[in-house]
Amino acid sequence: MTNLDVHDIARSARTYGLEGYFVVSPIEAQHPVVQRIVDHWCSGAGKHRFPERGEAIALVRLCLSIDDAIAEIEAEQGKAPRLVVTSAKAGPDRSSYAAEAERLRNETRPTLLLFGTGHGLSDRILQRADVFLEPIEGPSEFNHLSVRAAVAITLDRLFSLKSSANTPI
Amino acid sequence: MTNLDVHDIARSARTYGLEGYFVVSPIEAQHPVVQRIVDHWCSGAGKHRFPERGEAIALVRLCLSIDDAIAEIEAEQGKAPRLVVTSAKAGPDRSSYAAEAERLRNETRPTLLLFGTGHGLSDRILQRADVFLEPIEGPSEFNHLSVRAAVAITLDRLFSLKSSANTPI
Repeated sequence: MTNLDVHDIARSARTYGLEGYFVVSPIEAQHPVVQRIVDHWCSGAGKHRFPERGEAIALVRLCLSIDDAIAEIEAEQGKAPRLVVTSAKAGPDRSSYAAEAERLRNETRPTLLLFGTGHGLSDRILQRADVFLEPIEGPSEFNHLSVRAAVAITLDRLFSLKSSANTPI
Repeated sequence: MTNLDVHDIARSARTYGLEGYFVVSPIEAQHPVVQRIVDHWCSGAGKHRFPERGEAIALVRLCLSIDDAIAEIEAEQGKAPRLVVTSAKAGPDRSSYAAEAERLRNETRPTLLLFGTGHGLSDRILQRADVFLEPIEGPSEFNHLSVRAAVAITLDRLFSLKSSANTPI
């Protein structure tokens, strides 16, 4: 986990209108570090210099496990979230971004979009996923985007205003 | 400029099949720092651990000014590049991503896509731009994406395979 993971992903989440961004790490020693970043931008010196960063960072919620994040969402919204998993690997039953965007527009349950760093998400979580999104592919065979870039692209594909992304001038 | 700017943007550039990624900084003292990152991943210890990062970082080219980057492209390709500028600000005569993607498919000149950090691009460069892309907009009024996220989204909108981004399953 890096300082910029928290920043970049919070700013992307805020841009695309997400309600929260859970930073999940089972390593409890990392939590005070992340909390210090959050505090710096939300109430500390950073808030005065770059108030819009505080606005993004305010979406950050720290937890020890994905189960904890799911429980928090369920407690707040009264419904368990759908789990939508991203992966750089291809596989059967992958959903297109357009199909998932359509579901997001019509769905009444909350949705938890999951991104893994390093070794990716655990098998236990993958088995509980409601939707697997297809991998992000460019025109090359190279598929080693950073998690920060993968999140930005995924949110843009799922939540961008159609007019700006797809309509020719 | 941060270590992750170089990494993230190089990996996004490689994913979307770009031919090079110019890191432009007029501060000559920054160049050896960036060069050390490049060397670490392209020939140093990093190459053995993560060879795919070296493959991305190999696209990095350092220069002191955008004029130098333009001159290098012209010397190699025999044609001056079109300058395509990105901006978080709206304005007149902005091009949609779809229209620019179409031009990129048909254009024989090279194209230099310009992204600014911090205070953005200079007026002198903006005046020479061939195309201004419209700002990236999410469903919120917040438009403070990181440059790393903005590059990822822009390349995805311009170079992604249509099938993966736009076709429902």
